[in-house]
Amino acid sequence: MRKVYSLQIQYPEQTREFDSRLTKTGRRSLSHSISHSSTDSNSSGGSDAENPEDEVSPRDMQQINSKGNRDFCIKNIKLAGFGRREIELAEDEMTALMALRKAAQSEKPLAAAKIVGCTHITAQTAVLFETLMVLGAQCRWAACNIYSTQDEVAAALAEQVFAWKGESEDDFWWCIDRCVNVEGWEPNMILDDGGDMTHWIYKKYPHLFKKVKGIVEESITGIHRLHHLSKAGKLCVPAINVNDSVTKQKFDNLYCCRESILDSLKKTADIMFGGKQVAVCGYGEVGKGCSAALKAMGSIVYITEIDPICALQACMDGFRLAKLGDVVRQVDMVITCTGNKNIVVREHMDLMKNGCVVCNMGRSNTEIDVNSLRTPELVWQHVRAQVDHIIWPDGKRIVLLAEGRVLNLSSSTVPIYVLSITATTQALALIELFNAPEGRYKQDVYLLPKKLGNNAMDFQNSILKQTHTNEICVCLPA
Amino acid sequence: MRKVYSLQIQYPEQTREFDSRLTKTGRRSLSHSISHSSTDSNSSGGSDAENPEDEVSPRDMQQINSKGNRDFCIKNIKLAGFGRREIELAEDEMTALMALRKAAQSEKPLAAAKIVGCTHITAQTAVLFETLMVLGAQCRWAACNIYSTQDEVAAALAEQVFAWKGESEDDFWWCIDRCVNVEGWEPNMILDDGGDMTHWIYKKYPHLFKKVKGIVEESITGIHRLHHLSKAGKLCVPAINVNDSVTKQKFDNLYCCRESILDSLKKTADIMFGGKQVAVCGYGEVGKGCSAALKAMGSIVYITEIDPICALQACMDGFRLAKLGDVVRQVDMVITCTGNKNIVVREHMDLMKNGCVVCNMGRSNTEIDVNSLRTPELVWQHVRAQVDHIIWPDGKRIVLLAEGRVLNLSSSTVPIYVLSITATTQALALIELFNAPEGRYKQDVYLLPKKLGNNAMDFQNSILKQTHTNEICVCLPA
Amino acid sequence: MRKVYSLQIQYPEQTREFDSRLTKTGRRSLSHSISHSSTDSNSSGGSDAENPEDEVSPRDMQQINSKGNRDFCIKNIKLAGFGRREIELAEDEMTALMALRKAAQSEKPLAAAKIVGCTHITAQTAVLFETLMVLGAQCRWAACNIYSTQDEVAAALAEQVFAWKGESEDDFWWCIDRCVNVEGWEPNMILDDGGDMTHWIYKKYPHLFKKVKGIVEESITGIHRLHHLSKAGKLCVPAINVNDSVTKQKFDNLYCCRESILDSLKKTADIMFGGKQVAVCGYGEVGKGCSAALKAMGSIVYITEIDPICALQACMDGFRLAKLGDVVRQVDMVITCTGNKNIVVREHMDLMKNGCVVCNMGRSNTEIDVNSLRTPELVWQHVRAQVDHIIWPDGKRIVLLAEGRVLNLSSSTVPIYVLSITATTQALALIELFNAPEGRYKQDVYLLPKKLGNNAMDFQNSILKQTHTNEICVCLPA
Amino acid sequence: MRKVYSLQIQYPEQTREFDSRLTKTGRRSLSHSISHSSTDSNSSGGSDAENPEDEVSPRDMQQINSKGNRDFCIKNIKLAGFGRREIELAEDEMTALMALRKAAQSEKPLAAAKIVGCTHITAQTAVLFETLMVLGAQCRWAACNIYSTQDEVAAALAEQVFAWKGESEDDFWWCIDRCVNVEGWEPNMILDDGGDMTHWIYKKYPHLFKKVKGIVEESITGIHRLHHLSKAGKLCVPAINVNDSVTKQKFDNLYCCRESILDSLKKTADIMFGGKQVAVCGYGEVGKGCSAALKAMGSIVYITEIDPICALQACMDGFRLAKLGDVVRQVDMVITCTGNKNIVVREHMDLMKNGCVVCNMGRSNTEIDVNSLRTPELVWQHVRAQVDHIIWPDGKRIVLLAEGRVLNLSSSTVPIYVLSITATTQALALIELFNAPEGRYKQDVYLLPKKLGNNAMDFQNSILKQTHTNEICVCLPA
Repeated sequence: MRKVYSLQIQYPEQTREFDSRLTKTGRRSLSHSISHSSTDSNSSGGSDAENPEDEVSPRDMQQINSKGNRDFCIKNIKLAGFGRREIELAEDEMTALMALRKAAQSEKPLAAAKIVGCTHITAQTAVLFETLMVLGAQCRWAACNIYSTQDEVAAALAEQVFAWKGESEDDFWWCIDRCVNVEGWEPNMILDDGGDMTHWIYKKYPHLFKKVKGIVEESITGIHRLHHLSKAGKLCVPAINVNDSVTKQKFDNLYCCRESILDSLKKTADIMFGGKQVAVCGYGEVGKGCSAALKAMGSIVYITEIDPICALQACMDGFRLAKLGDVVRQVDMVITCTGNKNIVVREHMDLMKNGCVVCNMGRSNTEIDVNSLRTPELVWQHVRAQVDHIIWPDGKRIVLLAEGRVLNLSSSTVPIYVLSITATTQALALIELFNAPEGRYKQDVYLLPKKLGNNAMDFQNSILKQTHTNEICVCLPA
Repeated sequence: MRKVYSLQIQYPEQTREFDSRLTKTGRRSLSHSISHSSTDSNSSGGSDAENPEDEVSPRDMQQINSKGNRDFCIKNIKLAGFGRREIELAEDEMTALMALRKAAQSEKPLAAAKIVGCTHITAQTAVLFETLMVLGAQCRWAACNIYSTQDEVAAALAEQVFAWKGESEDDFWWCIDRCVNVEGWEPNMILDDGGDMTHWIYKKYPHLFKKVKGIVEESITGIHRLHHLSKAGKLCVPAINVNDSVTKQKFDNLYCCRESILDSLKKTADIMFGGKQVAVCGYGEVGKGCSAALKAMGSIVYITEIDPICALQACMDGFRLAKLGDVVRQVDMVITCTGNKNIVVREHMDLMKNGCVVCNMGRSNTEIDVNSLRTPELVWQHVRAQVDHIIWPDGKRIVLLAEGRVLNLSSSTVPIYVLSITATTQALALIELFNAPEGRYKQDVYLLPKKLGNNAMDFQNSILKQTHTNEICVCLPA
Repeated sequence: MRKVYSLQIQYPEQTREFDSRLTKTGRRSLSHSISHSSTDSNSSGGSDAENPEDEVSPRDMQQINSKGNRDFCIKNIKLAGFGRREIELAEDEMTALMALRKAAQSEKPLAAAKIVGCTHITAQTAVLFETLMVLGAQCRWAACNIYSTQDEVAAALAEQVFAWKGESEDDFWWCIDRCVNVEGWEPNMILDDGGDMTHWIYKKYPHLFKKVKGIVEESITGIHRLHHLSKAGKLCVPAINVNDSVTKQKFDNLYCCRESILDSLKKTADIMFGGKQVAVCGYGEVGKGCSAALKAMGSIVYITEIDPICALQACMDGFRLAKLGDVVRQVDMVITCTGNKNIVVREHMDLMKNGCVVCNMGRSNTEIDVNSLRTPELVWQHVRAQVDHIIWPDGKRIVLLAEGRVLNLSSSTVPIYVLSITATTQALALIELFNAPEGRYKQDVYLLPKKLGNNAMDFQNSILKQTHTNEICVCLPA
Repeated sequence: MRKVYSLQIQYPEQTREFDSRLTKTGRRSLSHSISHSSTDSNSSGGSDAENPEDEVSPRDMQQINSKGNRDFCIKNIKLAGFGRREIELAEDEMTALMALRKAAQSEKPLAAAKIVGCTHITAQTAVLFETLMVLGAQCRWAACNIYSTQDEVAAALAEQVFAWKGESEDDFWWCIDRCVNVEGWEPNMILDDGGDMTHWIYKKYPHLFKKVKGIVEESITGIHRLHHLSKAGKLCVPAINVNDSVTKQKFDNLYCCRESILDSLKKTADIMFGGKQVAVCGYGEVGKGCSAALKAMGSIVYITEIDPICALQACMDGFRLAKLGDVVRQVDMVITCTGNKNIVVREHMDLMKNGCVVCNMGRSNTEIDVNSLRTPELVWQHVRAQVDHIIWPDGKRIVLLAEGRVLNLSSSTVPIYVLSITATTQALALIELFNAPEGRYKQDVYLLPKKLGNNAMDFQNSILKQTHTNEICVCLPA
């Protein structure tokens, strides 16, 4: 099925602690990652089936790619062929990025750019990585998460990539270090997802910032860290916040969630939607997407919302407004999308009926008070990846998905198309910062200029127009 | 909010010219007005059937209301009973305003307020008018449009109302004057819709502004006039712009148009929607509402859009993007919602198939280039109210609705519920300006403070909550 | 197709009694009739405004049509021009019938047919009438309802038409008699809607049946009468039941109601649908259409249903199943679509909240127990056409539409497109019976042969294909 | 209900041939089977990871269950704990069957029934199997497909089960034989899925039919075989055709496909639906479900259809009718749902654009002419389970899913809820045949009596009612 954090639970506790620390920072990022395809392929390729204990660490292996290069550290170079196919598949869907690649390849707006990247290593980031190189950049890359690397993709990229699935914490920082601690090569741009690369450079190689023209950060956590630096007067280069760009907000949330809620629920809880009663908490963009999809599949959806305008929208869209406490006894599912804490608490869960599914699509991992379930009288039963049953003394069980973490990230069901828009935005932000005239950006955190966002949309759009063959989408005013 | 031209076409040419001059100013206002209900009632009441030529002008009549009062000038006091019923019906739907009335009636926040109003005179404005009085205000009222007065409603209000349907231009200004030129009574608040009242006072009785605490203006035209005054340094009191409030934008456009497009088309063109092909030009809030409704009724909808983000939204919402020129031969309807000029031009209409319906839901009356149809080779056939057939030399005819003016205004299909939100906003703006401490507002045009908007929403919402009986819409974070 | 009662309420009581007797027979027929368009036009045309008392009866008038013919009896031949325009508008929408006309006009399959018709006289039946004549038939026509005739349409047809709006009962039978009691002309086909023509011939001119090749009956009442004749061994010619044809069931119910429920509610109750709670009783085709439309407009819909399969369908379609008694306190509207009696009874109405709208879209006029409301403690207030307020002693009022009769018939909102399919079916049934070889049909009531139904659909479909220009709807298997 | 081929592709060719022979018979059966859950579990359980070559055949193993019983033959009894959990999860969703179990457990309507079953062995059939035993039956069970057994479920059932995943053909018949060739135990009921059990008894133990009271057959293939026997006068017991029951047709097709098309496409092709153009061939129940779901997710859907009534329905539902050839160049996906042969042929596929996805949701495996793609100039690339890329000489690739077999069966995405209705129907059919009075059923193939179907629905419905807590779905006429 799909990675992101899905396999954490199978790792020993100390590993989980390290991960949960990372998790707490709440990083989100380009991570369609480890699609079921890769799982399939791995099992046919055999790499996953090997016992972790038996493995030689990639750090101890000597590998060489087809070009004779050895400057990388990955799991298994033999997976390169399969990874290449995954990347090609991703290219087909990432139309905006490919359009940008094509449009700007002769101009090479990133010529002389030396980018260190720290993101998930997936087929989709591979398309970004390779696009940056087509546009003239040199890149070195590490993973921003110890589990999210698609090893076959890393193998296909190989050069200057330092990442594998199942890194230890020590491996994690070693890989990051290998990206920046290179003789005769100094980065002048940082593409970060969570802020670990930025943090490492600050801590270990602060002198490098003299040459760095800017940071492009994709995650909310990374943005928080940058703001802290900025407030402390320590931010010494401009940064662009990709996370809050219009394109990301519009497409990652509404359209992405509309599809991924269905996909995530099928993959984990495997329930039929028709006729089910669902409480969706919050009617922002995420809640709008989730409730529209479930309604379309024949579910009866209740909305809880405290903002009066959003509440009226829900009402006008035909949803029944309710207090969670008033419907929690009768619903088959509760989905949180508020961005707030403790939306679903133990009292609610005590009232739920047998078999009720509880999950979180919001930003925070704290919308469901999962800790309140870690009490002696409740039995936890791990049913399958992302699915736990919590069993009450009277035998009632509720189905908790992804331990309350963000469901569609955990079950990796973000559509590539959406990731494409984000990746294009990252590329455009890098181009902008790298080419901006002296003085346009100060040592501050910037929102992506609207113009850029539009450009990214234009690239996406230009492809749409191709798709809609002869009937292009423009009706010009006279 | 919005103006109503629906009966203009039945009036002699000179009258239309006067009106079209007014029309150019583009005024919008609170005007569910001239609903079919009132038409029905009028015809049974008989007042409409009388020949205009035979009528005595209301200015020449002596009428007296049930309380013995004569300080008003309306068409026919005998219609009061019927008008009262229309007002009661409106009260049932205008829940927010009635909630405000109830909540504030003991407090009387408008005690000592003397309001001159110039709006459409309809059942809905009557509810506003009477609410202001319940809250303590004294009011005098004139119509902002020579045709939009519901005579039976005016009769029910009677006192201090000066308006009838079919005023001459001279009547129009005479009525306005009767509101302000009163011995022993000086207004201290202005509620305007189009700016004519404000303008008249500036011109004739500028001294009155010494006591005026503020202006609440509802139309885009009136706002433009206030901005001109402000730029010229002549605005001598604060004004609140109700037109651009969040509540108005959200509800007037998306939710209102979703319903009124269907209603308007049925009332005028009377076509079945299922299986019809429709081009909707523009995918802003109005276009979103129109296309969602038509899709739901089984139409196949094409969207033309030049903004890339709106275009992508249309695409993600499942609509086919197209250039108008590419689909105009095959569609059964073309609906403009862009806010721009000349979206549908003669070349398009030359290509349309026989029976194609063309109409405008956008703000401007110039989206369809109607003038291009006024050429000798085309025959205009007036089929019924709001419907003209334009006939080509080869016999092809297109069906032009409302002569290209805004369709749902012309055919009076704005839901009362939506008007209720606007009216509540007006009332709250009056309360705010009247009670604001010295210095809070300067001599400038203000957007409605978000807080107020929320309050208005709260009133609306509180009623919603009552509607959703036991299951109130709040899920509070811990 | 369907009967229209809309103006009955304005007639004196004795007239209503006559009509209600007719009503009991429950006739339905081709009657988009009395559309608001015709109402509009009439009032501008002036014919309606005349006082009924002052009128000369059409039976006493001498009129002559443009061809110099006098063999007709209608209200006012001067309305012919306007009526012709209405007919032309109807032709544009009745694509199937026009396609049949075109396809068969050279062949003339009804040459030598002499048809007596008794249907509503509306623009749509006029298109049927004229199509039959193009196909070679001679026709004489009377109205099947004393109020449903569009006088301007009758004027446009003129020859051999005997009908006007507001006939007395005596007029009604006189008109029917004028169709059959003609020297030198004997009918050989009957097109009936309600069975009155058939009944009259049986009673007065039974010898005519020797030449009659068959009866085409459109209404459920007429079918019942034919079955009675058949059981009694008195049916002496074959008859085709158009009412139960597949095309009629599929399109009249689901697709027609989906649009007409919205239109009817707007025209009468004029409420906003968004956010409203509605109970729809019954989830057959009519209930499916109504609930789909309301859901699409943002209403929250509850379904009551006793058939388990329909109930599960409602459930799978995302509707909340409920007992009416359990939701009746909270809903804003109750719509009956069950075909059964006393679905909404006094106990329910006692529980409804103030302003609740009650109406019936089902077949029977007895779904709402209206009689239970005719008690001394309740006040009836007639608000406008089709709308009564019933007021409880405590001031609560419910809004009863069309006095519980079928709403979309009463408010005349059946889409022409749907009527077109029915009319085409009638024409094809006439052709079939007239040309059937000896022995194919016995003296019995037949369902429309599936083949015919398909032909009618093919005609409709062929037009659809034209509509969908180059992309025709066929994908043939290899 | 439906067969599962999903893992065939990983088996050597000779195995596939055997399977494809079975496949040709087109069997369908109760088989949510091989869900990802079971795959997950298997991989954690480790059984799958073992190399098939190394395995000891279950026939050579000595296993004993927790009750000390040895009368079974399965892969690995140690998986029982996990399988029990899967069964419990299935019980939660199979509400109708559990309601039947509860309602009839005291009555024991199958006391003395001795049932041999031959179906897929999955968590869902396990619930059926155990329900039959609760109702009093003794059962012996074999698999109807060599790959579809969930080994952990078989382990949980253990007793009297003879089945494992990856049987050889010889194993297959050996298992069936072990069910019937038992000393001191003779079956009196047969529950079959595909007819292999029935066939085996006819061939080897015809004397057993003397005691058999009836056959319940679930697949279309099995029904065909029974009809052949019947025509040949060889059918010696009554049989009930569960396949064509109303419940199955309504729910398996429309509601099931609405969900499984999305799930199947995500699992295999992993594309975003929003904005995609899709051609759906056929607008029967399956086509209606698929197109409704895709439309709801924002796809633009074209329908090809030759039946005029279905075509008009598509049109009225807002879909664009098209010839496949006219849209095949522009669409992103083609989905066949016609039940006919060669709907998508080589000529179409030659015209498709790069990346177009082609798949089949119809009954037949021949809707896509896959053989036409097996030509030397095209390269097949197996990308992952169920996904092949077919590459044209110019580099264009199309994405073929499940090699043209029925997609949702191949990717195992039939909702359990739907299976529950089918399984309940099977149980009720068994009860009916076993308890029917002498003479009610002759030696013929019966459709499930409507009454029974209703009963099954009632059970399902009764649970629905519980779900919809206090608001039950009944509104009784007076």
